[in-house]
Amino acid sequence: MPDLDPEEFRRLGHRFVDWVADYRAGLGELSVRAAVEPGWVRGQLAADLPEHPRPLEELLAEVDRVVVPASTHWQHPGFFGYFPANASLTSLLGDLLSGGLGTQGMLWSTSPACTEVEQVLLDGLAGALGLGKEYTFDGGGGGSIQDSASSAALVALLAALHRTSGGTWRETGTDGRERVYVTAETHSCMAKAVRVTGLGAQALQVVDPAPGSLAMSPDALAAAMAADTAAGLRPVLVCPTIGTTGTGAVDPVREIAQVSRAHGAWVHVDAAWAGVAALCPEFRDLLDGVELADSFCTDAHKWLLTAFDASMLWVRDGAALPAALSITPEYLRNAASESGEVVDYRDWQVPLGRRFRALKLWTVIHGLGLEGLRAHIRGHVALASELAARVRADPRFTLATPPSLALVCLRVLGRDDALDDRADDQATRAVLERVNASGSALLTHTVVDGRYVIRVAIGSVGTQPRHVEALWTALREAADAVRRGP
Amino acid sequence: MPDLDPEEFRRLGHRFVDWVADYRAGLGELSVRAAVEPGWVRGQLAADLPEHPRPLEELLAEVDRVVVPASTHWQHPGFFGYFPANASLTSLLGDLLSGGLGTQGMLWSTSPACTEVEQVLLDGLAGALGLGKEYTFDGGGGGSIQDSASSAALVALLAALHRTSGGTWRETGTDGRERVYVTAETHSCMAKAVRVTGLGAQALQVVDPAPGSLAMSPDALAAAMAADTAAGLRPVLVCPTIGTTGTGAVDPVREIAQVSRAHGAWVHVDAAWAGVAALCPEFRDLLDGVELADSFCTDAHKWLLTAFDASMLWVRDGAALPAALSITPEYLRNAASESGEVVDYRDWQVPLGRRFRALKLWTVIHGLGLEGLRAHIRGHVALASELAARVRADPRFTLATPPSLALVCLRVLGRDDALDDRADDQATRAVLERVNASGSALLTHTVVDGRYVIRVAIGSVGTQPRHVEALWTALREAADAVRRGP
Repeated sequence: MPDLDPEEFRRLGHRFVDWVADYRAGLGELSVRAAVEPGWVRGQLAADLPEHPRPLEELLAEVDRVVVPASTHWQHPGFFGYFPANASLTSLLGDLLSGGLGTQGMLWSTSPACTEVEQVLLDGLAGALGLGKEYTFDGGGGGSIQDSASSAALVALLAALHRTSGGTWRETGTDGRERVYVTAETHSCMAKAVRVTGLGAQALQVVDPAPGSLAMSPDALAAAMAADTAAGLRPVLVCPTIGTTGTGAVDPVREIAQVSRAHGAWVHVDAAWAGVAALCPEFRDLLDGVELADSFCTDAHKWLLTAFDASMLWVRDGAALPAALSITPEYLRNAASESGEVVDYRDWQVPLGRRFRALKLWTVIHGLGLEGLRAHIRGHVALASELAARVRADPRFTLATPPSLALVCLRVLGRDDALDDRADDQATRAVLERVNASGSALLTHTVVDGRYVIRVAIGSVGTQPRHVEALWTALREAADAVRRGP
Repeated sequence: MPDLDPEEFRRLGHRFVDWVADYRAGLGELSVRAAVEPGWVRGQLAADLPEHPRPLEELLAEVDRVVVPASTHWQHPGFFGYFPANASLTSLLGDLLSGGLGTQGMLWSTSPACTEVEQVLLDGLAGALGLGKEYTFDGGGGGSIQDSASSAALVALLAALHRTSGGTWRETGTDGRERVYVTAETHSCMAKAVRVTGLGAQALQVVDPAPGSLAMSPDALAAAMAADTAAGLRPVLVCPTIGTTGTGAVDPVREIAQVSRAHGAWVHVDAAWAGVAALCPEFRDLLDGVELADSFCTDAHKWLLTAFDASMLWVRDGAALPAALSITPEYLRNAASESGEVVDYRDWQVPLGRRFRALKLWTVIHGLGLEGLRAHIRGHVALASELAARVRADPRFTLATPPSLALVCLRVLGRDDALDDRADDQATRAVLERVNASGSALLTHTVVDGRYVIRVAIGSVGTQPRHVEALWTALREAADAVRRGP
């Protein structure tokens, strides 16, 4: 048998666990950003794969030598880029069990536990988030773990296409009349879903924001849907976002859902990053109107301490995804599925196979409790508020948009003596590059109203007040240096 | 900080590694199949999620109490169902590193190592499989790790839609004239991809097999493509399979590719299960003609000792997937991507995010060597040959199809004294149910030419000669009992 036997695995498993513990313990000392050129990693590794087994301890040395210096350290406490990707150590324990069981959960019958643990957790989290009974299996809906919010958006669109076609879509496909409504701030995954489903970019209607905001205007949506319907087009889906990627803007879900219902369009709420904040009662109003939507997505793998991949998707109609996605060849037929008493999660997703991902989520909830999850979120929101207050009070900086939960968007003012958009943008970009080059923190950017903006997304598992303090120092020093000039 | 600190993780990580080692060591004593009713697991777990943290040792007790008895044990040495899902202990070590690093590899710049290690491994495996230089990055093509063969089929179809549309598909979507060619034995993932991409079932052309076989007839394909083209339809993609799920049949890729080229259709070779066997020179002829195809998929997570998910997809045109899939919002723009010198794997797949999956594959290849992988495959093929010989020699059984690598398809003869299809089918089904109910082995079925067939897919990580021996004993005893009658 070529694989390790259990005793060898025990010994090496301890060794690999130690590597992870040591890596995490020393993470703060590393440069957040990889400082390697394209091709460096490829040049370090042998092109020919080894014919013979090599000691696995040597692999760890290779990882230290090649992988660590060529990695951007997403778990670093100074990682403030994109959105966080919380790979908590707690969740890794559950993921290890998932691998150990090696379950393939495509059907209920291929592992009842894999399916039902996921059902229990998603029902429980629907309650804890305040989503409402109708999103639970007990209430006729239900939740599932997808790999990512991109895939959640895709399957929501597929369910919408099936429902709005009156049942013809599975047979004759799309007809060129479908329309999907987003804003300029909606995540690109919805544009990708529109492309993947064969609607073409022509189907994507970019609805204007309400004046003075980045949030979708329900009036503009109503006008667009009415015009499209009058033109013989079919509103299929609208995607309001709770916490956009660029700036954390929140679309008015309640009004959007009311408009959409009149046209029979599916409402998919993308709350990939921000949705988990609704675990805290004080942020619960973020989800206002979600009970009127058709589907709701938030990622456990962003800000909920669960290692990628674990995107949670709830639907109010538990039959909607299987109706759109089910195909049953002979080799997948089984008595449990035919009884109608079970959920076969393969019919809730594009891939057939699925890992027992609920175990890592279960481990997080068990090991940290809902109060631990809330403390994690509250801590970061408080840090963001403090940072935003400092930005407001400092003449070298300005907030680009109001802070949203733990996301702060800021700009640098290039000159004290005059308004100069171009100088501001150059200074902001230069400050971002200077901070990133220091290795102490990693920031990414967006563009708002044509202006270059630094995003500070607070939320890494290990981020403490002192790390945000250090970031603020680095930002001020960089601003001084940039404003002083070369 | 709510998460475990590194020292707590070290202690608990050892404990969880021990759990996995103990579980694997005792696996042979468990019933392969879960023996629980729908709802049993849900009934065992508290509906309310815990408010407060609970000791993680208690989670292990809960897993032992609820998950283990309600799991079908895919890593059990008596698991012969579906296709294997090799979650080798070696691969779990690499997966642990992946979680430890917690990298998000959507862009080269978000972790150069995550991208380039995958490139090196997939180039190396292309060579080891004999795919040819054109499937490597060095040769203008390239490989990527997808979550599953379903997703690989989907993105291959998307690339084909883009290419065959002459560039209009991204803008105007599908037009109802696309056609995709399969056989009745092609995996249902291609029908699902056709549905997901909005072509509708109308687009799926089921090509007849060659007489007396289950493999696609190139002549029938040529006739279908010519008729469709004459009717103003557009051949987009043909999906030959190397090792069908039902019986392991092999479509003639070379002839299919020659036919397809004349019509400009994309050739996607689905070798999800069998493709990895080409690591062994004696099975290399399985891949005959693949050098003429456009894409080739084989799963490391089925029979190549790598825990789910790790489906390998190679394309001959490295620009094809990004051309079909790329969408770049401001917050993903970066200098490395714009330099054109790097691969951004997000453009090779539907999800934006991606885990550092190459680490588990790397660990497998490093720890076992190519010779270990070959020994794994050869051992199972030899066991299948022995089992097939026994079936041939036993008057109670017959082979339903010739054995294919490590897959044996057999039927039970219900009576000695007469041919009776119905009695045979009843006996075959009863034998399968009896063996599965014993808990010593798990078998699944298919239907061939209308006849009920038991599939014996040999390939679990721990399957040894004695386990196939025990299965053969169980099959004979079950056949005797069933034929004897109640």
